[in-house]
Amino acid sequence: MQRKIIHSNFVDSKSPDELNLRANHYMLIDGEQIVDLVPAIPQDWSKVTVLDYSTGFVMPGFVDLHCHVPQFVNRGIGIGMELLDWLHTYTFPEESRFADADYRRLIFKRLINAFWRHGSLASVVFATIHKAAAIDLINMFEQSGLRSFVGKVNMDSHSPDYYIEQTVDSIADTVAFVEATKHNKMAKPIITPRFVPSCSRELLTALGKIAADYNLPVQSHLSENKKEIAWVAELFPDCQSYADVYRQHDLWRPDYQTVMAHCVWPTSREKELLRASQVVVAHCPQSNGNLASGIAPITELLDYGIPVALGSDISGGHEVSISRAMQMALTFSNLYWVHVDTTARRLSFANAFYMATRAGGKFFGNLGDFKKGRLADFLAIDDSALGDCQKKDLSERLQRFIYCGDDRQIVARFVGGRQVDEPYADV
Amino acid sequence: MQRKIIHSNFVDSKSPDELNLRANHYMLIDGEQIVDLVPAIPQDWSKVTVLDYSTGFVMPGFVDLHCHVPQFVNRGIGIGMELLDWLHTYTFPEESRFADADYRRLIFKRLINAFWRHGSLASVVFATIHKAAAIDLINMFEQSGLRSFVGKVNMDSHSPDYYIEQTVDSIADTVAFVEATKHNKMAKPIITPRFVPSCSRELLTALGKIAADYNLPVQSHLSENKKEIAWVAELFPDCQSYADVYRQHDLWRPDYQTVMAHCVWPTSREKELLRASQVVVAHCPQSNGNLASGIAPITELLDYGIPVALGSDISGGHEVSISRAMQMALTFSNLYWVHVDTTARRLSFANAFYMATRAGGKFFGNLGDFKKGRLADFLAIDDSALGDCQKKDLSERLQRFIYCGDDRQIVARFVGGRQVDEPYADV
Repeated sequence: MQRKIIHSNFVDSKSPDELNLRANHYMLIDGEQIVDLVPAIPQDWSKVTVLDYSTGFVMPGFVDLHCHVPQFVNRGIGIGMELLDWLHTYTFPEESRFADADYRRLIFKRLINAFWRHGSLASVVFATIHKAAAIDLINMFEQSGLRSFVGKVNMDSHSPDYYIEQTVDSIADTVAFVEATKHNKMAKPIITPRFVPSCSRELLTALGKIAADYNLPVQSHLSENKKEIAWVAELFPDCQSYADVYRQHDLWRPDYQTVMAHCVWPTSREKELLRASQVVVAHCPQSNGNLASGIAPITELLDYGIPVALGSDISGGHEVSISRAMQMALTFSNLYWVHVDTTARRLSFANAFYMATRAGGKFFGNLGDFKKGRLADFLAIDDSALGDCQKKDLSERLQRFIYCGDDRQIVARFVGGRQVDEPYADV
Repeated sequence: MQRKIIHSNFVDSKSPDELNLRANHYMLIDGEQIVDLVPAIPQDWSKVTVLDYSTGFVMPGFVDLHCHVPQFVNRGIGIGMELLDWLHTYTFPEESRFADADYRRLIFKRLINAFWRHGSLASVVFATIHKAAAIDLINMFEQSGLRSFVGKVNMDSHSPDYYIEQTVDSIADTVAFVEATKHNKMAKPIITPRFVPSCSRELLTALGKIAADYNLPVQSHLSENKKEIAWVAELFPDCQSYADVYRQHDLWRPDYQTVMAHCVWPTSREKELLRASQVVVAHCPQSNGNLASGIAPITELLDYGIPVALGSDISGGHEVSISRAMQMALTFSNLYWVHVDTTARRLSFANAFYMATRAGGKFFGNLGDFKKGRLADFLAIDDSALGDCQKKDLSERLQRFIYCGDDRQIVARFVGGRQVDEPYADV
């Protein structure tokens, strides 16, 4: 295996509540993994190549746990509508275009490049209902050098004529998609019922069975918007909550294998279920603001023992940047404290950083911080253009980058110890 | 006077509620002013030079109505504290450093460059308590080619030993600052009591008199944070409200000559006073989120007849960008509707755009949109890198730029008909 050494200042999470700041250290990498992070190069590594990023700092790659790839074209457009109207006006018409192979490949390339540019080295994404589109997307991610879970979206109910599947086709196409991609190394399939209203009981049951048969993770949406929640209650009067619909159809996989986006309005029943299955909540504050969904009670979820990571939710959110999701999560938590519950704990910067890196990284398994044995997925940041950075301590430099930096400061991206270049330089 | 023609697609405000979209038009400029905006070049302008920005679009310059220049170094640092703690931990120590001429000039150059870069062609800013610093700043703005109102800050009470003035010095220095700068063309003095708690009655009275004597506008802070408001009530038990303190000391100048930052928690009494004096509220949502101040009831203020513009509030806010202030204003209004008052009107994109351009431009007089006779202050935007922009209509392209663009898309800045280069390319 190939060894390399990274010389830099390192920032990662010691725990969900604490940063780990190691100035002027050396990361020892053997093949895909971090062997150690030490203040001096050990004797037996003395002949290994050292890559120097010591004028800036190195941090774990961002993880985006919720994104609709085919909505990339709609970023920043039509903001202000609520969820259900917005889906029918903007989202479904755009997604339906992805039956066209040339069109979708262009957009997929642009989105994957954008993830790369903004340092989202691992992501969990929705494709469209089209089997061929989902296969294209997962193959293009696989080639990109970035990590991902990609879902073929399932929709057989309450969807427009031009963007809906027959139940049998939805099931068969999902199995075919999984069969075609289950041996992938970097881009893996994930079962993806769009949300409860777009799936029949029969479809939900079949998807739960596919997830179990192939031992696959699952992603969907949960309790994003009040009207949506009321609609789910109407559709499934026999279920105690929105969450129960997924659970009853065996769509909540055990222990950190399920992503539920949003959870803006979780009931106490739902919180129990989320914790019991260690479902990861993908908090998408930019989207929750744009679509007027509301502020999710994030510290309440965290302190109750529910994992929470961050998502861009393109195009409910308009930016790929997970730095921005961190900022918004912190702001939303402050506003929740002011306007909703003055007894709530306010999210800390360290909490938000953990949510942006390790909480999502854990969904991929062994990545998201710099503990020994982790996969060497990280970003090299050159913060010299952000002003007076040499005078600040490492914690302040990280904050300055997260709040005031952008893709221009990300000068190198490593996944599994290997530097990744822009995946699709032709678009 | 020198004539020029700008060929582009133009977006500005028709009213506070409506965009004005004119594709493929020509802006006729004579000297500093816009003569007309027309679909074809008139015969008698046929020999005038045409500058072509027609692949992108042209919009009014952004106006930043509230910014603390000396806090530029603190952007993104220490976010999460509330106002009063934050002032003593981060703000006052940094501002006190501006007694040092070399240090402050470096920071002033960086801030002015940042305004230029982000398209904030006009701004209303706080310097520090130091007369020499305020004079430096206003002179550097005057040379920059950008428009500004610059205030020497007044603080003779409840301030730390290392950052406070004697009342007589505060008054004398303010007069000297005004005398030294009152004939400026582009950067003009504005009376700037920091906020009520930092000023004695004697100082407030004197500042009111200076404002009247020299016919100067006034800026300060109003009702930002609940603890601050309680403190003001304690300090001025004889005043009916926070706003009354300024009013009773003649610090609210008539008709669009006063800027009050924040107004997160206005009482009905304060709303009456704001409307009566046509005080411009500088809404700074990024700051209000970072400092956990709360969500200002913006549509309520607007619909009541109070002018509202936008401010970055560096470093309560961490970004100079007024695009970002627009985004945050829209998101905050959505959250206000969800969590505070479901009967509130939600801010529209057109409202936010007006707040970012014409509402602030009106404080400078004759700028902020493209009506005949306005000063020709505008930005040329090249949105080609934002993806699929040629397929979108002008309204969508504007939204895409505001939500997903940044300084990289601003390719030219014109103030009073003249293109402005980066003011201080040496830093």
